[in-house]
Amino acid sequence: MIEGSKVKLPDWTWEFHGHRCPFMPTGYRMGLVALRELGIDRIKDHGAFALSEMGVGHPQQCMIDGFMSATGCTYGKLMMERLNYGKVASTLFAPGKGAVRVYLRSDFQDVLSKEEFFSYRKKGIEPSDIPSEVTERAIKVVLESSEERMFKVEPLPDFEFSRPKGSFAKVKCTKCGEYVFERYVRIKDGMALCIPCSGFTESRLDALKGMQ
Amino acid sequence: MIEGSKVKLPDWTWEFHGHRCPFMPTGYRMGLVALRELGIDRIKDHGAFALSEMGVGHPQQCMIDGFMSATGCTYGKLMMERLNYGKVASTLFAPGKGAVRVYLRSDFQDVLSKEEFFSYRKKGIEPSDIPSEVTERAIKVVLESSEERMFKVEPLPDFEFSRPKGSFAKVKCTKCGEYVFERYVRIKDGMALCIPCSGFTESRLDALKGMQ
Repeated sequence: MIEGSKVKLPDWTWEFHGHRCPFMPTGYRMGLVALRELGIDRIKDHGAFALSEMGVGHPQQCMIDGFMSATGCTYGKLMMERLNYGKVASTLFAPGKGAVRVYLRSDFQDVLSKEEFFSYRKKGIEPSDIPSEVTERAIKVVLESSEERMFKVEPLPDFEFSRPKGSFAKVKCTKCGEYVFERYVRIKDGMALCIPCSGFTESRLDALKGMQ
Repeated sequence: MIEGSKVKLPDWTWEFHGHRCPFMPTGYRMGLVALRELGIDRIKDHGAFALSEMGVGHPQQCMIDGFMSATGCTYGKLMMERLNYGKVASTLFAPGKGAVRVYLRSDFQDVLSKEEFFSYRKKGIEPSDIPSEVTERAIKVVLESSEERMFKVEPLPDFEFSRPKGSFAKVKCTKCGEYVFERYVRIKDGMALCIPCSGFTESRLDALKGMQ
């Protein structure tokens, strides 16, 4: 447990994220905790999977960029998905190492939400337009609070997850001529088509098919 | 149009992504093209939205990390979603500026797929375990090919998109006591619960509710 820690985020995490705010570093710290609990290093490739409980239409999702940056579980590598529970929590899973869930404690959410930064956000002011000293004060709270005060950590011994089976096979859509990976080819009037050309609407649920 | 361009990616984009590979820079270049076509700069906050047509269970999604890095439309800021069409294409939308779709030309996909890098990937070897000279050769093809050879660019004049309306309102789940943003509170036996405590399964479709 780190008391009164002063966590330093690599500069590139801010570059990637695009603005300064308190929730990107919250997610970064959350990711560091999860890595340590599983006893693994930041992944280079596909060695761990992250699930954020954040959803849409509410603030604080910036946490996800921090969690991706700390763990290496990026959305582009398909190692991060959103569960849409609307909770400030993330789960990290590494095959053979187990899974751990980290929740930003309700009491700490209460403390942090009193920061002036959020008065600006509630008025719809974008983070990069908020006075720098206001933003830096909120970031300081996140970087200097003890881990114990911030996070509830739960091992998930029964957690199971597998990625969808991968394939390089692709075909050209009969209509538009563009390449489509086989999983997403649809058949209409006997023709092999991409989803937009087929006109079929598509559920996004298959993104989580590897999960129960 | 840039002929024989030699694009230089910021070092932090590689740090973020975690390994060297040809598709992260492909996405980065795709993002630069989209920004230029819309006449906008990389976003700091929420000024543009990206949709990748990539799906799951196939290679080349690394493109998404490059597109996020170039445009600033990060998954954490909720400015990037996946459409799951299984196509190597992305759309960038900026209110008042329009939308543009960029597709990695089929002919270029054919050329790139001949790179030895993909023989290793098809054997299941992780990018960071592939001999460096093999990887760098594939990256060189991406960085030095002309934009015209690589990308098909289509303005989408009829594209419409809006983000889900945001709210800071949250309540504590009656059962677990954790905070939940209101949109995700569920009622069961008269109690306000979070989704996991409610036992209700949840579609992820609402992530795209702002879209048609």
